[in-house]
Amino acid sequence: MTTTANSNRRIIYAKRPTGMPTVDCFQLVTVPMPQPGPGQALVRNDYLSVDPYIRMRMEEKDSYTSVMKVGETLVGRTVGQIVASQIAGFEAGDWVVGRLGWQDYSVAEAADLQKIDIDAAPATAYLGSLGSTGITAWVGLMEFGKPKPGETVLVSAASGAVGSVVGQLARQQGCRVVGIAGGPAKCAVVREEFNFDDCVDYKADTFAADLARAVPQGVDVYFDNVGGPILDAVLPLLNNFARIPLCGLVSQYNATEPYGIKNFRELFNHRVTLRGFVLSDHKDLWPLASKSLAQAYAAGQLKYRESITDGLENAPRAFIDMLHGSNVGKQLVRLRAGA
Amino acid sequence: MTTTANSNRRIIYAKRPTGMPTVDCFQLVTVPMPQPGPGQALVRNDYLSVDPYIRMRMEEKDSYTSVMKVGETLVGRTVGQIVASQIAGFEAGDWVVGRLGWQDYSVAEAADLQKIDIDAAPATAYLGSLGSTGITAWVGLMEFGKPKPGETVLVSAASGAVGSVVGQLARQQGCRVVGIAGGPAKCAVVREEFNFDDCVDYKADTFAADLARAVPQGVDVYFDNVGGPILDAVLPLLNNFARIPLCGLVSQYNATEPYGIKNFRELFNHRVTLRGFVLSDHKDLWPLASKSLAQAYAAGQLKYRESITDGLENAPRAFIDMLHGSNVGKQLVRLRAGA
Repeated sequence: MTTTANSNRRIIYAKRPTGMPTVDCFQLVTVPMPQPGPGQALVRNDYLSVDPYIRMRMEEKDSYTSVMKVGETLVGRTVGQIVASQIAGFEAGDWVVGRLGWQDYSVAEAADLQKIDIDAAPATAYLGSLGSTGITAWVGLMEFGKPKPGETVLVSAASGAVGSVVGQLARQQGCRVVGIAGGPAKCAVVREEFNFDDCVDYKADTFAADLARAVPQGVDVYFDNVGGPILDAVLPLLNNFARIPLCGLVSQYNATEPYGIKNFRELFNHRVTLRGFVLSDHKDLWPLASKSLAQAYAAGQLKYRESITDGLENAPRAFIDMLHGSNVGKQLVRLRAGA
Repeated sequence: MTTTANSNRRIIYAKRPTGMPTVDCFQLVTVPMPQPGPGQALVRNDYLSVDPYIRMRMEEKDSYTSVMKVGETLVGRTVGQIVASQIAGFEAGDWVVGRLGWQDYSVAEAADLQKIDIDAAPATAYLGSLGSTGITAWVGLMEFGKPKPGETVLVSAASGAVGSVVGQLARQQGCRVVGIAGGPAKCAVVREEFNFDDCVDYKADTFAADLARAVPQGVDVYFDNVGGPILDAVLPLLNNFARIPLCGLVSQYNATEPYGIKNFRELFNHRVTLRGFVLSDHKDLWPLASKSLAQAYAAGQLKYRESITDGLENAPRAFIDMLHGSNVGKQLVRLRAGA
C-alpha cells in the first residue's frame, strides 16, 4: 500500500481493548489527501512516536488525558517536513514536530507545530531526548525529584525513553544513579550506554535482594514509570524525606485488576513526598528543560537509543510490542522509507 | 493501689503485640519515688495522653519513630504540676506538659518541659487541641494541605483528636469540610459539635455512595489518618492537583497483613501531591501553630471533646479501646483523682 499525491493513510481507533491491546483495536484507512486552508500547513510525517500514555487514552474510564473515541485517528507525536504552507513564518521544507497523529500526512495550524533544528541533532531526537520525552524526564526529576549531589536516584523502566534520560540527568547532578530494567541485555545497555552506576533486573528471582544491594545508602529519589509490584519493592528502601516523581504506571495500563500497593505505609514512615505529574501541566518549564537537554546533548552527556519499526501499517504492532517492553530507548515508527 | 510519698507507679512495656495489643502487653510496677537532682524537677502527672503513634513504637520493625524496648516505661505526653524543682525558672506549682511517660510522677529536665497557662484554657487542652494534637492538625493542613477558600477538604477519623481540629481549621479557611467517622453517633458529633459541613459513616453499607454524594465538587485536600480501604475509597474522588497530608494509617497499625491500595493510580491520573509527615520534623512551625490554635480557641472557633478514663492502671485498656475507635475526641487518662 502506498500513499499517492491524492490519498493519505491513517490509523484509526477501531475497538477498545480489554487488557493488552491487540492489532484489531487499530484499523488502517485510506482517505483523500488533506488540503491546507488559510492559516494551515500540510506536513509529511517522517517518524511517529508511540508512547505508553496512548494506552491510557484507549480507556473508557476517566484518565489524566481525554480518552479517544472509537473511529478517531490515533494520537501521537510526529516529526516531518512541511509540504505546503499557508502559515506566515512556516515554509515548505521546514522541519517540524507536533502531535499530528498516526498518519502519513497531516494538516496543522501554527499552534500545533514547533520548528526544529536538524543541524543540531537528528530529527528523531526531537521526538525523544530533546523533545517531549526528554522534557518529561527533566521536569519530573528536577521539579519534583529535586536531586542533591551525593543522593541516590533510582529509576524504573531505566532502558526506556524517559528513564534513560532521567538517569543521565541525575548523574549530571552528582547523584548515584541506579536503574531497574527487564533482563540482562537491557541492564547492560543502562549501565554501559546510559552510564548508570548500576542496574537491577526485575525479572530475576533475586530482584529484591539485588535491589537492596544496589542502593546501600537507600533511595532519595525514586523516579517511577511503572507502579505495581516494582514500586512495592522499592518503598521499603526509601530514605526519610524521599521524593517520588510518579511519571506513569505502565505495569498497570493493561491490568484488568489493579495491583494493590502493600507497602504504602512506608510513604508515611519515611515522610515521603509523592507527586503524580504529566508534562502538559508544566508548559512554563519547557523552554528551560529544552535548553538544558540541548546543552547536555551538545556536550555529549545525553546518549539515546531508538527502536525503529518501518511502515505506518506496522505501528500497532510496534505500540503493542513496546507495551510488552520489547523496545530499548525510544520506540519510533518510520513512516517514509528512506527518511 | 495508691501512690505514697515513697513510691511511684508506672506502666512498662511487657510484651510485643501481634496485631491488636492486649492488656498483658503492659505491666503496672511500683518503684521508689524519684528524686530530682540538679537541673531537674519532679512532676506530678495529672493526665496522660494515649495516642495511636504509641502503637507504632510497640513494633519490632522499622517505623518512623524509634521503637520501644520491652521493659521500658511506655511513652506518652502528660500534663501536671511541678512538685519540687532544681531548675531555674521552674517552681513548685507550675503547670507543665511534657513527654513524661505512663507514670504518676516523673523527673524531667528543662528541655522536656513546657509551661502552660491554665487560665487561658483547661490543662488538658494542652495535651489536645492546644498541644501536639492540635499542632499536628495545623501543620498537616496548612503546610501540606494548603487549603484554598471554596475547596473541599475531606478528613478521616474526623471525630478523633486530630481530625476534629483539622475540620475546624479548614472551615476557618473558607473550605467545604467533610468528615469520615465510624457510626451515626460519631458523625453527629462531627457535624454538630465540630461544625463540619457533612460527615459520612464508613461503617454503613452505602459508604462509597454516601461519600461520593458528600463531595459533589470532588476532593481537593484529603487529610488522612487511617489509610487502608477508606483511602482506597477516597482516591477516585480526588480532583486534579489534590493534596494528601498523610498523618497516619491507624487502620494498618494492628494489621498483620497490610491492605493493598488498589486505586494508587489515581495519584498519577489526578497529579496528586501526597506527603507523609510527623510533627517532630516541623518544630520550626510549632510557635506559629500554637499561636493560631490559641487564637481560634479564644475566639470560640475550636471545640474539642475528651474521652477520659480514670486511673493509671486503666491506661492500657484506654489505649486499646482507642485503637478500636471507642473514643470521641482526645483520649486521656486521669492519673490523679480529683484532677
